[in-house]
Amino acid sequence: MQMGLLIVLSGPAGVGKGTVCTALRKRMPEIVYSVSATTRQPRAGEVDGVNYFFKTRQQFEQMIKQDALLEYAEYVGNYYGTPREFVDQTLSAGKDVILEIEVQGAMQVKERFPNAIFVFLLPPSMEELKQRITGRGTESQQTIDIRMGVATKEMELLEHYHYAVVNDEIEAACDRVRSIIIAEHCRKDIVIRSRSAASAIGNKQ
Amino acid sequence: MQMGLLIVLSGPAGVGKGTVCTALRKRMPEIVYSVSATTRQPRAGEVDGVNYFFKTRQQFEQMIKQDALLEYAEYVGNYYGTPREFVDQTLSAGKDVILEIEVQGAMQVKERFPNAIFVFLLPPSMEELKQRITGRGTESQQTIDIRMGVATKEMELLEHYHYAVVNDEIEAACDRVRSIIIAEHCRKDIVIRSRSAASAIGNKQ
Repeated sequence: MQMGLLIVLSGPAGVGKGTVCTALRKRMPEIVYSVSATTRQPRAGEVDGVNYFFKTRQQFEQMIKQDALLEYAEYVGNYYGTPREFVDQTLSAGKDVILEIEVQGAMQVKERFPNAIFVFLLPPSMEELKQRITGRGTESQQTIDIRMGVATKEMELLEHYHYAVVNDEIEAACDRVRSIIIAEHCRKDIVIRSRSAASAIGNKQ
Repeated sequence: MQMGLLIVLSGPAGVGKGTVCTALRKRMPEIVYSVSATTRQPRAGEVDGVNYFFKTRQQFEQMIKQDALLEYAEYVGNYYGTPREFVDQTLSAGKDVILEIEVQGAMQVKERFPNAIFVFLLPPSMEELKQRITGRGTESQQTIDIRMGVATKEMELLEHYHYAVVNDEIEAACDRVRSIIIAEHCRKDIVIRSRSAASAIGNKQ
């Protein structure tokens, strides 16, 4: 059984990772979307095990101690992380897994999964990212400045990624990410491996 | 102006390179398809400059001498080759070019364009390739054996390629090649280069 591919979709806060991931889910239902663990309170309609695994702070810190998280970060006073076991099991079952995570987390995953595919979602421009961050609501100028400072720092991590996808339009961005996943399955080494594993040669996608 | 990508689509004789290329042409009309030069006689309906550049043997050998061909080979007594100037000009104009060529020619292109994207079209199985070669018409057993021997040798060149695409079904194979081209345009280095070339960041596809 050939391992599935691990795809890490990341990028600065406000770039629209969640929206692109939701579109991708419809387009590629055969891919497994990892569910994060968090200590933040569930919002209306959020279901434990579907949107997040909701944990107490104590439970989360226990997971950190047991090395049960692929990556984690603290953000605005709450922990967010990716349970490792689910990802390992799904990949071993030959299924692709997508992690939609923050850039700090992505760098942690890279240490553990150097063969994962790293996709950085880019805003069409920094001006556009500023508008998205500003347009979110009634944030103060100071909050906007801090967020833009963080986003600019996060953009610098692009160099550690394999691919950069501009989120100018959701369906176009989704098609690019889908193309990257299909292309990665067509890499010669992967096809040769699956060819020696099966008598008939077949791309996965 | 950023250079276009050179995509080399190759694979053993009988695998269906032409059919996949025709499907891709409809799917990606924005890509330029290189026209080969040949010394073989035009078939009914073939137009000079569209299907091939039809050359005399003397003209072709002149092109070889002048290093005007990216690659060439002799096949069943006729020359086939790729005029270099058209490819160079189209790439310089920022457009992608596809070469649909035999495997020997592809290896010549690799020496001149190490940055080209090499895609190897695979039959679903060697058994299937044999059926396609046999099913072409009224070939003798000897001809079939020779062709299978050549095809088996050609398959060994797969290791020099970046991607392997199984031609199990034309539209699926076409979608894989399209995905590879889009993914290659999303490579981080390419996006960063185009980002420094333009003020707004934008993927090409």
